[in-house]
Amino acid sequence: MKKIEILDSTLRDGAQGEGISFSVWDKMKIAVALDRLGIDYIEAGNPYSNPKDMEFIKKAAEHSFTTSKICAFGSTARKDTAPQDDEGIAALLECGTKYISVFGKAWDLHVDCILGTTLEENLRMIRESIAYLCSKGRTVFFDAEHFFDGYKSDPAYAIEVLKTAEKAGASSIILCDTNGGSFPDEISKAVKEVKKTIKVQLGIHCHNDTGCAAANTVSAVKAGASQVQGTFTGIGERCGNAALTTVIPDLQLKLGYNILTSERLADITMTAMYISEIANVRLPANMPYIGTSAFAHKGGMHADGVAKNSKTFEHVDPQLVGNRRNFPLSEMSGRSSVLPRLQQIDGSLTKSSSVTKEVTDKLKELESQGFKFEAASASFELMVLKELGRFRPHFEIDHYRIISSMDDIDGSAYTEKANALVKVRVGDRSEITADEGEGPVNAIDKALRKALEVFYPELKKMHLIDFKVRVITSNDSTAAITRVLIESTDGENTWTTVGASRDIINASVLALTDSLEYMLKDK
Amino acid sequence: MKKIEILDSTLRDGAQGEGISFSVWDKMKIAVALDRLGIDYIEAGNPYSNPKDMEFIKKAAEHSFTTSKICAFGSTARKDTAPQDDEGIAALLECGTKYISVFGKAWDLHVDCILGTTLEENLRMIRESIAYLCSKGRTVFFDAEHFFDGYKSDPAYAIEVLKTAEKAGASSIILCDTNGGSFPDEISKAVKEVKKTIKVQLGIHCHNDTGCAAANTVSAVKAGASQVQGTFTGIGERCGNAALTTVIPDLQLKLGYNILTSERLADITMTAMYISEIANVRLPANMPYIGTSAFAHKGGMHADGVAKNSKTFEHVDPQLVGNRRNFPLSEMSGRSSVLPRLQQIDGSLTKSSSVTKEVTDKLKELESQGFKFEAASASFELMVLKELGRFRPHFEIDHYRIISSMDDIDGSAYTEKANALVKVRVGDRSEITADEGEGPVNAIDKALRKALEVFYPELKKMHLIDFKVRVITSNDSTAAITRVLIESTDGENTWTTVGASRDIINASVLALTDSLEYMLKDK
Repeated sequence: MKKIEILDSTLRDGAQGEGISFSVWDKMKIAVALDRLGIDYIEAGNPYSNPKDMEFIKKAAEHSFTTSKICAFGSTARKDTAPQDDEGIAALLECGTKYISVFGKAWDLHVDCILGTTLEENLRMIRESIAYLCSKGRTVFFDAEHFFDGYKSDPAYAIEVLKTAEKAGASSIILCDTNGGSFPDEISKAVKEVKKTIKVQLGIHCHNDTGCAAANTVSAVKAGASQVQGTFTGIGERCGNAALTTVIPDLQLKLGYNILTSERLADITMTAMYISEIANVRLPANMPYIGTSAFAHKGGMHADGVAKNSKTFEHVDPQLVGNRRNFPLSEMSGRSSVLPRLQQIDGSLTKSSSVTKEVTDKLKELESQGFKFEAASASFELMVLKELGRFRPHFEIDHYRIISSMDDIDGSAYTEKANALVKVRVGDRSEITADEGEGPVNAIDKALRKALEVFYPELKKMHLIDFKVRVITSNDSTAAITRVLIESTDGENTWTTVGASRDIINASVLALTDSLEYMLKDK
Repeated sequence: MKKIEILDSTLRDGAQGEGISFSVWDKMKIAVALDRLGIDYIEAGNPYSNPKDMEFIKKAAEHSFTTSKICAFGSTARKDTAPQDDEGIAALLECGTKYISVFGKAWDLHVDCILGTTLEENLRMIRESIAYLCSKGRTVFFDAEHFFDGYKSDPAYAIEVLKTAEKAGASSIILCDTNGGSFPDEISKAVKEVKKTIKVQLGIHCHNDTGCAAANTVSAVKAGASQVQGTFTGIGERCGNAALTTVIPDLQLKLGYNILTSERLADITMTAMYISEIANVRLPANMPYIGTSAFAHKGGMHADGVAKNSKTFEHVDPQLVGNRRNFPLSEMSGRSSVLPRLQQIDGSLTKSSSVTKEVTDKLKELESQGFKFEAASASFELMVLKELGRFRPHFEIDHYRIISSMDDIDGSAYTEKANALVKVRVGDRSEITADEGEGPVNAIDKALRKALEVFYPELKKMHLIDFKVRVITSNDSTAAITRVLIESTDGENTWTTVGASRDIINASVLALTDSLEYMLKDK
């Protein structure tokens, strides 16, 4: 079946979503996850508008990805400016990617009102910018911004823009519904019309302002587009972009297009959870395919029906996207979804092993307390070892005390370093020590390691690379349950642990303890 | 333009969403809000399956609504049972509504696999149930469950089901995409085909499992359906139903159908906030039309464009749905996105006012320290008042001390309540007090309010409704910068403030201080 290429713009258009802010390190982690899933192109950012993007794109351009190609994003040269004199174009070349997305105006209103120039000059900007980037050995995707609005307003000019880009050397032309105001029948008609004239690959880029981003993307593909752009979980400017977690399964599972291998498609739910965790965005439970409620059958008739024949109330099998069926308020869910992860730890376990039931029950109990193990496989493994009776603690915390303080000195608030003292026991020995840090969590982190390194000098090799906090039951305000995720490394491996508590320090200490135990577990 | 009728199923299909649970009183409040907005039909629940629904429907059937008609929902009689002997049918009559939605099977797979009966018996169940309810003076809507799956599997039988319902007296026939697996072109083709045979009103009922519920609904209307079913904000079984907050503006503002008066359409955003508050469901910020980010322009070019001509980056005017334009402040923004928010505080400010530049610079400085004002307009306003020299603090914190501790007691870790003492100064008076709480942030929150309420008893009216924590520079691990967002209310207004620091307690105290100052600012 026909191959569809995917360009993920989480790091570019997604970063334009309200409330989204990625560090360079966040961006790299997301890129690695997209590469692992088998996404064709990663649109990495705009190197001209944002120095953080420049830094990341340069790093990413040098990194060797398995499947994904890194793509920089930017504008055509400005009006009345030759591409070789344009700073934006220079930034696109400087960042060093082979693939470049260049956007230009396809709506006469924008040429007039935003650029303040003539229709002819707009064509010149597009033509010369693309030709110049191609002459520097780049592969250029042309994003025809507002194409569908332009096509409604002045179809001849909108098509002329595309022809200009094709002739100048663009290898793909992306039709953008930038304002997200279109409907599927309009998209389908316009794409078919374009297809008559333009012979290079067509792409589609939709926003969700009418709630039709997924449907519009699917219609464009049915009409002949073969590059699909979106953001992984649908974040983006205003109402967001087409969510790749929706359109990839739509196209592959329902319409038979060829996108990901089935093994990789089965990772799409986990990848979405991982990426939204990094973006610190709550995935709506009812997201198609990947949401925790996407295959939840609450109505009694539905639950019964699914038990008889899953096809009766499920349009696809949840396992195909790595999600699971879920019967809220019933005891039916659980074991079959826990088992694959258990077997990674102990291959001899089966669905009927007593440990499988115990772990499933324990998991439910811990999740109700705010723990979440999707992103914390090290804590999950320790929990299973405990249930199997194979866990031996390497230390115990006897007690800790932490003091945080602030003083007003001559009219300025002065927050002192937090101080922590901790006493640990290892076998029949113990160590009491103290340290100070930037806030209470950092102080106890430092004091705890200092005490433990007396017994386990190898802990010096370990350090924390990521620390995330999420308030879960946020309507309890400052007494809410807090979940802490800690990612650690010993220089070779990295692992993630979780802690949850109404007390953020306690939650942090739980995650920290797991992290230290995980490092020591094979000793 | 053509009139489209709306049936809201928030109280029936919406109640089947995971995590949704309405009291009778919740249901009545939602019904009143839907009536006020001008919704034609309110599907109130299934009186047979649920005694709470029976109670509510009886109440609602007696209540006098202005525009909305109450509709009870239930199944046809069971197989091998006459309608006059069926308990479900009896419950539908008992609850006393004039309008009744009856669902029956339109998919041969379901007849065989779920009902376990013959295709002919299924037709008998539909025919006799509808005829019987009509003979009792009821107006019957027939919900053809799984119509689109049935139409794919055995089109002749699916159409036969509809014909049977029409002949038996159904006044409207609703085509249901119960599993939510369809695409717009399929829906459109099937509705056009049905239209050739069926002469009574057609309705459409879509689920969102392919992310196409809104698009599917719109295509069905374009193909001839004139009753639209959905839930108000899209809650419902699995991935939810078509959201009326999306499809009503789609149909009315973009396609010219006649649904609500324009005054009432301008209440749709507020109504959605109200209903989701009662349902205790968080409205995604990027919901089309009604989300807080639906008209947020973060990218600098987009913000500039909208300032020049809103049509350039908005497919409809936000005022038409009672929403508003929003310029999130971020590293991507410059003076033109700061200005509209500044002008809300002081209308005399312009792009060239010196304060505009000072605020823009201050904003960048604070953002580099980890503050973020996109969602924290109360902190933004206080910051502007400070820059304008118009801010007068109502209190100062002289000092605080917080003690967090954990002890191992007989082998179990025991985290004690955190203790905080704080001294505040108000003018030349001061107050020192202490409190304890779930973790250090809760402890200082409680102690600080306790001290301030001595001077400002009106603070008792204020409480925190949301508390969010985000670790920003997460690769600095436990010494990373932490950002805290606090949402507060005095019962009438709500406001959000922000604090950022390497010390989470300090960040929380900064956000808390702003929140308290904002409450007091007009005193």
